[in-house]
Amino acid sequence: MLASVDGHAQPTKPPTSAEILAAAPAADWRVIDPENTLYLDLPTGRVVIELDPAFAPQHVANIKTLVREHYFDGLFIERAQDNYVVQWGDPDARKPLGSAKTGLPAEYSRKTAPGEAFTALPDPDTYAPQTGFEDGFAVARDPLRGETWLTHCYGAVGVGRDVPPDTGSGAELYAVIGNAPRGLDRNIALVGKVVQGIELLSVMPRGAAAMGFYDKPGQRIPIRQVRVAADVPAADQLRLEEMRTDSQSFAAWIGAKRNHTDPWFVEPVGRVEVCNVPVPVRTAK
Amino acid sequence: MLASVDGHAQPTKPPTSAEILAAAPAADWRVIDPENTLYLDLPTGRVVIELDPAFAPQHVANIKTLVREHYFDGLFIERAQDNYVVQWGDPDARKPLGSAKTGLPAEYSRKTAPGEAFTALPDPDTYAPQTGFEDGFAVARDPLRGETWLTHCYGAVGVGRDVPPDTGSGAELYAVIGNAPRGLDRNIALVGKVVQGIELLSVMPRGAAAMGFYDKPGQRIPIRQVRVAADVPAADQLRLEEMRTDSQSFAAWIGAKRNHTDPWFVEPVGRVEVCNVPVPVRTAK
Repeated sequence: MLASVDGHAQPTKPPTSAEILAAAPAADWRVIDPENTLYLDLPTGRVVIELDPAFAPQHVANIKTLVREHYFDGLFIERAQDNYVVQWGDPDARKPLGSAKTGLPAEYSRKTAPGEAFTALPDPDTYAPQTGFEDGFAVARDPLRGETWLTHCYGAVGVGRDVPPDTGSGAELYAVIGNAPRGLDRNIALVGKVVQGIELLSVMPRGAAAMGFYDKPGQRIPIRQVRVAADVPAADQLRLEEMRTDSQSFAAWIGAKRNHTDPWFVEPVGRVEVCNVPVPVRTAK
Repeated sequence: MLASVDGHAQPTKPPTSAEILAAAPAADWRVIDPENTLYLDLPTGRVVIELDPAFAPQHVANIKTLVREHYFDGLFIERAQDNYVVQWGDPDARKPLGSAKTGLPAEYSRKTAPGEAFTALPDPDTYAPQTGFEDGFAVARDPLRGETWLTHCYGAVGVGRDVPPDTGSGAELYAVIGNAPRGLDRNIALVGKVVQGIELLSVMPRGAAAMGFYDKPGQRIPIRQVRVAADVPAADQLRLEEMRTDSQSFAAWIGAKRNHTDPWFVEPVGRVEVCNVPVPVRTAK
């Protein structure tokens, strides 16, 4: 890039991450839809989850039914497996699901549609022919199969299931708290991601039983309530915005994550893996 | 693979991870050298770190000098940044380093030597032309540059430094507790990895100050002591063994991590990223 200064063309330094955030125009941000936002309220604070109905619409709808019938209120964080996931739901699998469905089809990927606002990453990925972002979410694609799917990055939220693929309902949910377990991609339904408060989940004491389940009921962390943000009085809603992943600001953001111009770096790297590009989230001004 | 059963050739199912561990002969395990093992003792328990002098010999030697002069005893876990690192050392950077050096050369990679016991992974990697394992450690390689380096996988332990590359001493150490920040590879000296007790570090409350430092001294977690395992009475040493990464058992282990034959998986995946292959560690029988 060249900038004219005092009549001379000079190379300009690419902007830093902080500069990109500061310079991003209002049009490069979008409000996170309160209708697709969950507040998971724990004794230690609030975890905010953005749902993505584009990839698992039936799962997302069922989760919202469960939430609106207060299914999760009084249930528990029941599992914390180091470098893997935290999971919540009913440890005894006894609480009735109300009007929600008890099993859903395997919504693990979707047909790639023309006109999707896909922002590709240029670098190779171990698990997929192509990776990038759609509507704020990290995704992977297989052009030969014509499929796109959400990826298991840190903070991704998914739906626990038993061995048959149609046994997930949304009554058991998990969030990734370790190195991206990308081998789960296309094997289970992802429904969203934590956009605030993941650090409340990632510090949960690890469970001693198999798969990190708590071996004593007293170790479980109670869930005060889960709400759809749209159902909370407007004055109590968090007004969160996410950088549009089809914006020029996000393109610059990817650039800053790929090429480190900070003098601390002796190797600029020049590459980035999809799970190492967090999508910026801020409180609306 | 074909096995003859009742006179007929039949396909055999590849072994599961549990079967590989159970079947691995004694020769496929090596004792983790007590001379290259650190015990980091915290109020909540012991973190065991295996040092790798092959990649950063001067850093490892300096750390052992610091440990043997009891530098870390009474210092603190001072930083916990979510999805990144936990760091320990002297928050005030005042404690004298004794006979240890105050700055070391940038040992961030090494020349690839013929005859290294390198076990390659077959799958593409975002950050390096080649990845695999050497002597129990996850590594990456660039054949064109003829260099090999340790990778920033979950649990990797490295040496904090200031902006000039020769300012690391080992007095400030960090462990990775999030998605592998592989962009740090070749930018800072890695010296080893946590082989037991990483879950004591990963649950540390996240710090509220910039970069996850604790903003109040009272939040810091005191270090009881750090010892080289070889300096501890034999009866008090943990006898840990690690699967040899140049063994047939480890080749099978990689196979099990790449191809999921568990009926839960609807996609066998067929690929694995280097940081998603933990090297098995066990207590010696």
